[in-house]
Amino acid sequence: MSTTDNQLRVGMVGYAFMGAAHSQAWRTVNRVYDLPARARMALICGRDPVKVAEAADRLGWEEHTTDWRELVARPDIDVVDICTPGDSHAEIALAALAAGKHVLCEKPLANSVAEAREMTAAAATARAGGARSMCGFNYRRVPAVALMRQLVADGRLGEIRHVRASYLQDWIVDPQFPLVWRLRKEVSGSGALGDIGAHIIDLTQYVTGQRIAGVSAVTETFVKQRPLPAESSGLAAQVDGAAATGPVTVDDAAIFIARLDGGALATYEATRFATGRKNALRVEINGSLGSVAFDLERLNELEFHDATRPAAEQGFSRILVTESEHPYLSAWWPPGHIIGYEHSFTHQMRDFIEAVATGVDPTPSFADALQVQLVLDAVVRSAELGSSWTEVEPALATVAV
Amino acid sequence: MSTTDNQLRVGMVGYAFMGAAHSQAWRTVNRVYDLPARARMALICGRDPVKVAEAADRLGWEEHTTDWRELVARPDIDVVDICTPGDSHAEIALAALAAGKHVLCEKPLANSVAEAREMTAAAATARAGGARSMCGFNYRRVPAVALMRQLVADGRLGEIRHVRASYLQDWIVDPQFPLVWRLRKEVSGSGALGDIGAHIIDLTQYVTGQRIAGVSAVTETFVKQRPLPAESSGLAAQVDGAAATGPVTVDDAAIFIARLDGGALATYEATRFATGRKNALRVEINGSLGSVAFDLERLNELEFHDATRPAAEQGFSRILVTESEHPYLSAWWPPGHIIGYEHSFTHQMRDFIEAVATGVDPTPSFADALQVQLVLDAVVRSAELGSSWTEVEPALATVAV
Amino acid sequence: MSTTDNQLRVGMVGYAFMGAAHSQAWRTVNRVYDLPARARMALICGRDPVKVAEAADRLGWEEHTTDWRELVARPDIDVVDICTPGDSHAEIALAALAAGKHVLCEKPLANSVAEAREMTAAAATARAGGARSMCGFNYRRVPAVALMRQLVADGRLGEIRHVRASYLQDWIVDPQFPLVWRLRKEVSGSGALGDIGAHIIDLTQYVTGQRIAGVSAVTETFVKQRPLPAESSGLAAQVDGAAATGPVTVDDAAIFIARLDGGALATYEATRFATGRKNALRVEINGSLGSVAFDLERLNELEFHDATRPAAEQGFSRILVTESEHPYLSAWWPPGHIIGYEHSFTHQMRDFIEAVATGVDPTPSFADALQVQLVLDAVVRSAELGSSWTEVEPALATVAV
Amino acid sequence: MSTTDNQLRVGMVGYAFMGAAHSQAWRTVNRVYDLPARARMALICGRDPVKVAEAADRLGWEEHTTDWRELVARPDIDVVDICTPGDSHAEIALAALAAGKHVLCEKPLANSVAEAREMTAAAATARAGGARSMCGFNYRRVPAVALMRQLVADGRLGEIRHVRASYLQDWIVDPQFPLVWRLRKEVSGSGALGDIGAHIIDLTQYVTGQRIAGVSAVTETFVKQRPLPAESSGLAAQVDGAAATGPVTVDDAAIFIARLDGGALATYEATRFATGRKNALRVEINGSLGSVAFDLERLNELEFHDATRPAAEQGFSRILVTESEHPYLSAWWPPGHIIGYEHSFTHQMRDFIEAVATGVDPTPSFADALQVQLVLDAVVRSAELGSSWTEVEPALATVAV
Repeated sequence: MSTTDNQLRVGMVGYAFMGAAHSQAWRTVNRVYDLPARARMALICGRDPVKVAEAADRLGWEEHTTDWRELVARPDIDVVDICTPGDSHAEIALAALAAGKHVLCEKPLANSVAEAREMTAAAATARAGGARSMCGFNYRRVPAVALMRQLVADGRLGEIRHVRASYLQDWIVDPQFPLVWRLRKEVSGSGALGDIGAHIIDLTQYVTGQRIAGVSAVTETFVKQRPLPAESSGLAAQVDGAAATGPVTVDDAAIFIARLDGGALATYEATRFATGRKNALRVEINGSLGSVAFDLERLNELEFHDATRPAAEQGFSRILVTESEHPYLSAWWPPGHIIGYEHSFTHQMRDFIEAVATGVDPTPSFADALQVQLVLDAVVRSAELGSSWTEVEPALATVAV
Repeated sequence: MSTTDNQLRVGMVGYAFMGAAHSQAWRTVNRVYDLPARARMALICGRDPVKVAEAADRLGWEEHTTDWRELVARPDIDVVDICTPGDSHAEIALAALAAGKHVLCEKPLANSVAEAREMTAAAATARAGGARSMCGFNYRRVPAVALMRQLVADGRLGEIRHVRASYLQDWIVDPQFPLVWRLRKEVSGSGALGDIGAHIIDLTQYVTGQRIAGVSAVTETFVKQRPLPAESSGLAAQVDGAAATGPVTVDDAAIFIARLDGGALATYEATRFATGRKNALRVEINGSLGSVAFDLERLNELEFHDATRPAAEQGFSRILVTESEHPYLSAWWPPGHIIGYEHSFTHQMRDFIEAVATGVDPTPSFADALQVQLVLDAVVRSAELGSSWTEVEPALATVAV
Repeated sequence: MSTTDNQLRVGMVGYAFMGAAHSQAWRTVNRVYDLPARARMALICGRDPVKVAEAADRLGWEEHTTDWRELVARPDIDVVDICTPGDSHAEIALAALAAGKHVLCEKPLANSVAEAREMTAAAATARAGGARSMCGFNYRRVPAVALMRQLVADGRLGEIRHVRASYLQDWIVDPQFPLVWRLRKEVSGSGALGDIGAHIIDLTQYVTGQRIAGVSAVTETFVKQRPLPAESSGLAAQVDGAAATGPVTVDDAAIFIARLDGGALATYEATRFATGRKNALRVEINGSLGSVAFDLERLNELEFHDATRPAAEQGFSRILVTESEHPYLSAWWPPGHIIGYEHSFTHQMRDFIEAVATGVDPTPSFADALQVQLVLDAVVRSAELGSSWTEVEPALATVAV
Repeated sequence: MSTTDNQLRVGMVGYAFMGAAHSQAWRTVNRVYDLPARARMALICGRDPVKVAEAADRLGWEEHTTDWRELVARPDIDVVDICTPGDSHAEIALAALAAGKHVLCEKPLANSVAEAREMTAAAATARAGGARSMCGFNYRRVPAVALMRQLVADGRLGEIRHVRASYLQDWIVDPQFPLVWRLRKEVSGSGALGDIGAHIIDLTQYVTGQRIAGVSAVTETFVKQRPLPAESSGLAAQVDGAAATGPVTVDDAAIFIARLDGGALATYEATRFATGRKNALRVEINGSLGSVAFDLERLNELEFHDATRPAAEQGFSRILVTESEHPYLSAWWPPGHIIGYEHSFTHQMRDFIEAVATGVDPTPSFADALQVQLVLDAVVRSAELGSSWTEVEPALATVAV
């Protein structure tokens, strides 16, 4: 592992939805940002030899392999970028860290708290040898989200009283939508909760600077049997003609109320059954001095209410977060020329490269991601115990080991 | 009690915010709608002799009194309209029903389940003698809400999966805002929960046709001591110069998750600490075939998503609910000429008058309002018991007595 | 004419759409505002004896007549409120002014500049005898519009550079919609131009404090023949079964560009063919320091952009114009409890009563309305002369006579 | 020129704002779309040797030069992509076409009608030799715009009655903003009119399928002298310390009304003085059966009103144009994962590559762009002649020469 030539040779595992998004980011980041190192798209890994070859060619990776162990073992690889389903995160990350690689792992960090703990401990160990690690909660890098964080950190909201967060999708409302891997617990760990609920847990904790202390939760699986899939891509899939069915083993939706450790009340909802909502990650935060509201379907906008202004002029301001003064944006287009979903990954790679190249720990760390995992775990336990109030286990105890 | 002359002589108790809103509605209803009876603003009652006289003169009531018992006893009064704080609802309503009057009682019906039960039983008894009763959940009569109800009833949403409801206000964010009656449990029964939470409970049950089966709740009082008030009006108030303080004995905010008896998951939030949100009663309902979304701050609009349309054309339609085809609106202005908050009361009086004059029971009944009270009670008990799952007690058992 | 008893006895001519709106305002104004005089709904006049009797009963007028000359002549009438189509404004107003009555006349003031000049001169003469006059550009009294005026007057927008105004309706898109009086030039004077274009001309001049100096215009009648109507009410109408047709003699739409005398460029559009837009009076004004935007379909909101704020926080603020600090609103409901279209008339009556009772000239005056008429005239002339640039004739010369 | 190896070797002239946007598109297009040829970023040209070398390195071009004539002359270049200011479009394009290159030229096509005519004639000549040409009106490739075009073409709007188009920016409101090349007529040809007005002219003609027949216009330069610039980049610039000033020789704003050849009325506005509006290209089109509305600041959304639906359900639907059924989007992210401004260029390159590789003429052609130029010319002439009605000269006559 070396960046003496100012290059970071990336080996990426996975080539589906996340693989495509990460590829677009690795390809773009150095073309837009002036950074101390350049990412080189060195090697892509996938299980299907034909498909991975095709992906390498299309997405622009220099080499390809079907063996992630080979990828991890190669001495010329500096960064291992894990874009697989959650069931393989731990194994790959542990191997990569053991090999001294920098690791960027997609969220959620793992499918269980135990795995996440192990990964966090391994990251701490590898850190001593110079390897950096990061979990891919990419929405932290949406400029409007970063601006929310700034406003809170600058005290513009005062004391936080309320958080309401929801992540609403609708891609499995149709009961004939097939049983893709995201609906199978053994692969994905959980359903809407871990896939999109993890995002709003991380995002709200990041923006408020507070942690969820306890929760009371309900989860539900509305459609319990689905046809087996023939093929899937991204969030789309075709049904196998044979029409065999299988059980959905994850939640379709999860809702919970929470208290944050700074005293705020919070409501959370993650669902794939919100008909008409496609990617509606919505967050509103109310403080004693102001409020912010955000919707990922309009990710270039932030609504900010400043309650210290004259009463007759107060209102939620629609800030078009496209000014050069805004986070990440001085390198992009003129004001009002909006960016898209994929840019959150480009910004993530920018911060990752800069941290690694300058010897700084990128965030969110594996420890941060473990804390999210502990919240997910508390939600699952509360739901299993009839919504009983469930405190989130502290992450620090673990890390201290 | 007689409507042989096609008049309904109304005696109203209370002259503050609700008294003014009801007066505007009684004054207007027969000028807009062609109804089988005409309301006559006969008598207004309030505790302060000077203020009630002034209110009678300003609001247009023929007579005034400081004794609600006199009002209830007067043979020429047909309808008793109760606009007082919750602590006197039961006593006045019971007396009015006993006197054979039609009763319109503001929400929440009472400050306790016990009172609500007694009132519901009394209403059933009085009903045998011809007296009708109704609880004033006025938002059912917002045209967009009535349209939501129609869409659900017509099956346009399919099977309901999600309800998310919030009622957000911010009028007591300032810790120097005084300790008005709405912040004292002995008068108001509860805080945000009963005052505005009751509205979203009733509204979502009405629109979905489903009842809340169980809840898990958290409540909070953010500001625990406040200056004593000198005077208040509506939701505004001045602080007494002496600056003595007293304890806030109600919730500032209440959040809860719920299951509806038809299988939907639901989240609820009622708060007076949502900085920048003035009267944001928001409801979104997702079903298997469509969704609706509503915001009381834009009460002339309904967003409707019809998932049976071609995929490329689907989207939430902003229906401007001002067409003559829409509920209540054929009597008002041309399309696009919007109506306001107060019209919900005019529509309520329209339905009340029509029901009474034609011998039909108006809705929501006291039994319906008791059911809301039982939900409020479950929320309070869950919050007291560490958010433990709490089933809503059935109302029918009570009514059966 | 006397207000010694603190009463203003109103005689209103017309009982259709405007008659109903004015009645609602006269009925309400003293119930909400504390004013130096009280309006008394004394006498209503209409051509059809049955209908006017019915209207008097329903709308709440004490007496009725079919002869407007009798109304004008009655010594106990203090105010003549003219709600008829434009072709009778001049005759009624001149008679009322000659009789020393205060006059409130619906907009547009007249169907021609000549009439408007004569009325303005008569108003000046009557003014010497104590009679006040006002033209009913009610949208000036929408709180958000009044707030726009305040912001401009306070210099918050700096130097005005752009005005873009449109008034979009769609009630005659259907070619089978009948030939109601609003589509006949001999009654209404013009089509969309005078009916709704007059509103945006007045509103933008009022808000900016600038006058339109010159215009270049195009008008169009898309549907040139229509069925004759059987009956109409408000903007709705039924077609006569006989299916005879007649020519539409007014514009369906008018568009024009303009220069304001303070240097701003402006675009205007008035149309009844904007499918899906019901009552979309939209105005945006850009200045060197800020901007405002307004939409009558959301009349409780004003968008205000303050360009003097820090760049990263700038954005259009959605001000919910429902605070007690906002114009006209301290007498209404708590913040966020919105008002409707009809309230603009109540506010208009409030200002009219206050002006008359305290001996002040209400605005807009007949002279102000004449100036709007001169703009309408310039638009018509430009359209007739192939869109040639047409300067607006000065109103003052006329008044000076 | 050969694409036998399935490669299109691109030579791009210019490396500023448009150069960066085009580079992002050339780099991305084959990574996302499966196309019959691959673009190769072969050669970039710019006047400053240091900056062009830096640009080549950062943006990812294989080689660089300071001599566009060399670029045009190189036999291994297949495509010449012209991203320079308008004053050099004609010379470069004529040379490239003479050399048999495919040409993609940024808009507006030229700084004068004469140049545009010559370029169009040259394109026709070169076409015979197999060279294709296209003008870069990239907004045609925004999916929501393409969807508008489809809806109109499918007859969903019926007969078009109204077009209202505005392109609002505010980047030169500050009178201290320097005199960049876009404000100098000899370089840019015109100001807001040609820069952003050209976009709304092309877009509305494209979407409606109609051409502007005649116009009446006003233009204005609000700030007539500005400091000379030290350096500029994109739309941002710094002022030279010496503070010398120079005259602004282009329009700051242009407004005009128009008739389309299909009978619609239209209003247009292009301005750089709309304080608070950053990139607000807004278009609304009303037809007899429906309407569409679009705002480039929310380019993933299209509002569609279908007037053939039941009256009680009509409303503008906010279509989130991110479905795989929508134009260009099947290759991108799952529904609701929005795209940005730059994607319009990627889509443009996709269509250009596909057309060239399959031997089809890409659109918009130079002839289409000449027609836009003729509209711009009519606007300028009308403004110079006191807004007199000015017919747009037919483009076909020219091409026929």
